[in-house]
Amino acid sequence: MERKEFRDLASPAEAREAIRSLSLEGGIDRVPLEESRGRVLVARLDAELDVPGFDRASLDGYALRARDTFGADEADPARLEIVGEVHAGEEPAVEVGEGEAVEISTGAVMPPGADAMVPVERTDRVERRSTERASGSAASQEGEDVLIRTSVAPGDNVMFAGADVAAGERALGPGTRITPREIGLLSALGVEEVPVRSRPTVGIVSTGDELVRPGEDLDSGRGEIYDVNSYTIAAGVEDAGGEAVLYPHAGDDQDEMERTLREAAAECDLVCSSGSTSASAVDVIYRVIEERGELLLHGVSVKPGKPMLVGRLEDSAYVGLPGYPVSAMMVFRTFVAPAIREAAGLPEPKSATVSGTMAREERYGEGRLRLMPVGLVEGGAGETLVYPVDKGSGATTSLAEADGVVEVAPETDYLEAGEDVTVRLFSADVRPPTLFGVGEDDPRLNRVLDDLENPRYLSVGSRPALRRLREGVPDVAVVAGPLEREVDAEEFGGWEREWGLVVRPGNPDGIEGVADLVDRDLRFINRTTDSGLRTSLERALEDLADGRDASRRDLAESIEGYDLGLRAHESPARTVAAGDAHAGLGLRETADRLDLAFVPLGDQPVRILANPDRLEKAGVRELATRLEE
Amino acid sequence: MERKEFRDLASPAEAREAIRSLSLEGGIDRVPLEESRGRVLVARLDAELDVPGFDRASLDGYALRARDTFGADEADPARLEIVGEVHAGEEPAVEVGEGEAVEISTGAVMPPGADAMVPVERTDRVERRSTERASGSAASQEGEDVLIRTSVAPGDNVMFAGADVAAGERALGPGTRITPREIGLLSALGVEEVPVRSRPTVGIVSTGDELVRPGEDLDSGRGEIYDVNSYTIAAGVEDAGGEAVLYPHAGDDQDEMERTLREAAAECDLVCSSGSTSASAVDVIYRVIEERGELLLHGVSVKPGKPMLVGRLEDSAYVGLPGYPVSAMMVFRTFVAPAIREAAGLPEPKSATVSGTMAREERYGEGRLRLMPVGLVEGGAGETLVYPVDKGSGATTSLAEADGVVEVAPETDYLEAGEDVTVRLFSADVRPPTLFGVGEDDPRLNRVLDDLENPRYLSVGSRPALRRLREGVPDVAVVAGPLEREVDAEEFGGWEREWGLVVRPGNPDGIEGVADLVDRDLRFINRTTDSGLRTSLERALEDLADGRDASRRDLAESIEGYDLGLRAHESPARTVAAGDAHAGLGLRETADRLDLAFVPLGDQPVRILANPDRLEKAGVRELATRLEE
Repeated sequence: MERKEFRDLASPAEAREAIRSLSLEGGIDRVPLEESRGRVLVARLDAELDVPGFDRASLDGYALRARDTFGADEADPARLEIVGEVHAGEEPAVEVGEGEAVEISTGAVMPPGADAMVPVERTDRVERRSTERASGSAASQEGEDVLIRTSVAPGDNVMFAGADVAAGERALGPGTRITPREIGLLSALGVEEVPVRSRPTVGIVSTGDELVRPGEDLDSGRGEIYDVNSYTIAAGVEDAGGEAVLYPHAGDDQDEMERTLREAAAECDLVCSSGSTSASAVDVIYRVIEERGELLLHGVSVKPGKPMLVGRLEDSAYVGLPGYPVSAMMVFRTFVAPAIREAAGLPEPKSATVSGTMAREERYGEGRLRLMPVGLVEGGAGETLVYPVDKGSGATTSLAEADGVVEVAPETDYLEAGEDVTVRLFSADVRPPTLFGVGEDDPRLNRVLDDLENPRYLSVGSRPALRRLREGVPDVAVVAGPLEREVDAEEFGGWEREWGLVVRPGNPDGIEGVADLVDRDLRFINRTTDSGLRTSLERALEDLADGRDASRRDLAESIEGYDLGLRAHESPARTVAAGDAHAGLGLRETADRLDLAFVPLGDQPVRILANPDRLEKAGVRELATRLEE
Repeated sequence: MERKEFRDLASPAEAREAIRSLSLEGGIDRVPLEESRGRVLVARLDAELDVPGFDRASLDGYALRARDTFGADEADPARLEIVGEVHAGEEPAVEVGEGEAVEISTGAVMPPGADAMVPVERTDRVERRSTERASGSAASQEGEDVLIRTSVAPGDNVMFAGADVAAGERALGPGTRITPREIGLLSALGVEEVPVRSRPTVGIVSTGDELVRPGEDLDSGRGEIYDVNSYTIAAGVEDAGGEAVLYPHAGDDQDEMERTLREAAAECDLVCSSGSTSASAVDVIYRVIEERGELLLHGVSVKPGKPMLVGRLEDSAYVGLPGYPVSAMMVFRTFVAPAIREAAGLPEPKSATVSGTMAREERYGEGRLRLMPVGLVEGGAGETLVYPVDKGSGATTSLAEADGVVEVAPETDYLEAGEDVTVRLFSADVRPPTLFGVGEDDPRLNRVLDDLENPRYLSVGSRPALRRLREGVPDVAVVAGPLEREVDAEEFGGWEREWGLVVRPGNPDGIEGVADLVDRDLRFINRTTDSGLRTSLERALEDLADGRDASRRDLAESIEGYDLGLRAHESPARTVAAGDAHAGLGLRETADRLDLAFVPLGDQPVRILANPDRLEKAGVRELATRLEE
């Protein structure tokens, strides 16, 4: 098989054009009115009837002839004979003649002969005068009169047939998005079924032998990981107004992959594959597309997202997304979601874009369009600050720390701090966090954060937190252990926590302190140097070294596992619990929670340090209040 | 039964407080991850595992010991023996020793012994040297070597276990709204079920004998109308994050109403009734609430919405909404929707509020908070202009012409033109129309509008359109018939249309013109004086009067039905089609479409007149382009 060659990377504009040329727009759905919310009308709807369909009393009161009230006022009311009543939902049984009135309720049909009505508040009901009783007809004998204390003009307090909507009137145009107000109008018109645009169906195919669906068991030894792309892209499809169809994860088996791709193509308007980047998987996709479709482009000058494929497969459109979740989602949002929105008739709301300024410099300069995931934080003056979020392309989760994307032009070498940028939010209702904190992981801190509304906290460790606080991006840094240098920050709260060695239940190895780690053949699990726990451990080891007239470095080298630091505060304890180590660096609270024993080595301070220009920010003040509780 | 007395109207703040005191918040739902989009997390989720769960190759290439590459470069590559390969999803079967390398694919588990990897682009595969072949082990005989053209440090191109998310780390806090980015994180953590806040269930009970569900037959003679509130409030409930439950429409029968209310109260967190304002219906609601709940307030100082009820019914919250659809929705949006949002954990997005300036003066001064429905239009300088939308409280449909609400304080007597106001949009994705037109209803115009994106057009007739254009609110006015006075507007398009008398198929009455209406005993259906058709008819009648030396007024009085004008352009024709009149004022196009005969009386111009300061507005230019096609 000869591959179609794509020597040059396509430009982002060419990629957008290629996807647009696939024209995803589908057919028409007829949905019941009560299920039409959020859909998009496909044709004009004209009113098929008058609303209201009859002349309608606007209030409770009396229907009458307006000319019978001429000159009436509080002092000199008009007196009319009550000849009947009509309620809402009833056909009037009487006609209103000269000098007569009919009691009428709100929404009832105006009886023939009446041309106006007077609200009950401007009337009094009285017994019929005896003089008139004598001359009255049989029907009105023993009846009542009504005194009308105001004069009205013809049409007063009556809504005429068609006054609200008239038959034949243009009610809603094609392309209208149906919200409650449109449902109100369509209800009034008695519309039962609404012709709306079909949602484009998007088949999602994840490939790769290493992928496991969330909820199933994971074998990390075999390098298995959970499939992030399937559900995430499916949610993105639904956000854009499409309907996602998940196909069983295809593995790297060529026949299976071909079967799945062709099944998805037969059933969907668009197929999005992602996952395996293995050469054999790409080969299958190439072959299937070239045999049963057309490849329009391979490779786009964008970072991340270079390996994108665009083409047709059978009668379906096809887009191949990169395998790494962050790359896949950035490409999906930038190139695919707009096409789905367009097909669904749902333009992106304006509010999905915000302006901000770069919180710090960001270098780039790779000559490709960069889709830079960014977080937002409100600065001291209420301004929107923007900072890049990057945990490396292999990270699956950095999008959870981002609020949107900045597109950085290929010719941009770097963005200066303070430079204005435009952020496309991940969705229109993304709200920047009320509080942005970085620092040490701590169980008590986690509980405090739970009480705050929409905080963002990144457990980067104490040292990186101080660096980031100096750069001026976060609101607060949470730092544990001894402070190693002066920081220009406001310390406005904190607590002590007990740290030490987490050991097996009952401490079967009889570990009493750091000396045991140095002197005995025990496997120890450390934290990284970013952690404040590690700093306290180094101090303890230094004290021991001083006593022995040795160097800290020498002692550290004799501890098995000292240099292998784990990033998360619970990881050493979990390794001990799993039986893979004798002792781990950790907190008493962690040991207690995981039912492990604990050898205390000391107390260390946890300090909450605030960015000096954020002290008045609502989220920071709220945190301060919680810390005082 | 004695009624609890509420002598004074409650303030809007008291009404909000009463509804808040009903605390709608429900329980916890456990939903599958793939169905969790849009829901709100109810508890903190911590990572239960490391992501990745193993040390992972970030690229395709070779796993090796970093120290074996020290000093290697393009000129002097390091040569290592390939001892095996490991793919994604496989457990490594080999260990990497000194001088050895293992071929590894992206995402695969780093084999034991290796501490770094080199991407394939910086390597060359070569045949094993014969000298080494002699000394090689059996396993590596006939094998290959790899030349490493770069040096790497330990950890390079490897993502260590837990580097992305570490076990025990705080992943997502309570109250987090689940969007694709959160689904990505939860997928990576393998979460199968997500604990989310239950959506508050809202039972919707419409009462009133005159109400008919859309889709069913309507008997206008009995004063029946379609039930607007049920579906509209249901859509509003879903917009606010609640779950709407529609109960069968209850009529005014007391037992039936009580049964329905109690059933709804037993099944839902909140019951919203609306509809009948008849005294007996209010009595039932009062009685049921006082017997089986508690009435907290009756009557709020707000317009519209005065008759609101707030209380408890069994274990459910209860709000009684006014019956008129516009009033019901305004009260629902202002008082009830925020409570549902709060219970659902979905605060209103900031983008649901916009600032604008009043396009014209609006008088008020009733001493109650006014919930004023308004439309938005973009002014000539791109500014947001705000104008009140009001078709009278009886109208069911004016919300379809509004974009949001301005709350006017009780002490405000009037809003000046140019005054700044804040508009709460009906939803965050409401977009002001691209073009705002008013004027004559016309079939050709309707087709032109269909080709525009999101236009708003109000068929108010030619005369009111000119008045509104003078006030400066709409972008364009569409005026038919002779212009009666100078207007300061740009005429930038138009066409002629043939008008006359629409008569029964085959013209069985032999009607030849206006004279027949005057001289014969025929029932005629006219349009209102707002219509341009009516103006042309008046001119024709004037000509006839001149010929006969009579006055127009005299001739008009001899036409049966001349003074009864219908508002919509098709209504006279429809009345003729229904057999209720001999002739109606209308267009040839309407007669053709309804298969009626037509007696032409002339051609009249339809003029598109633009507000002079809106000529450069995109929607106006787009209209101009369409008119030239």
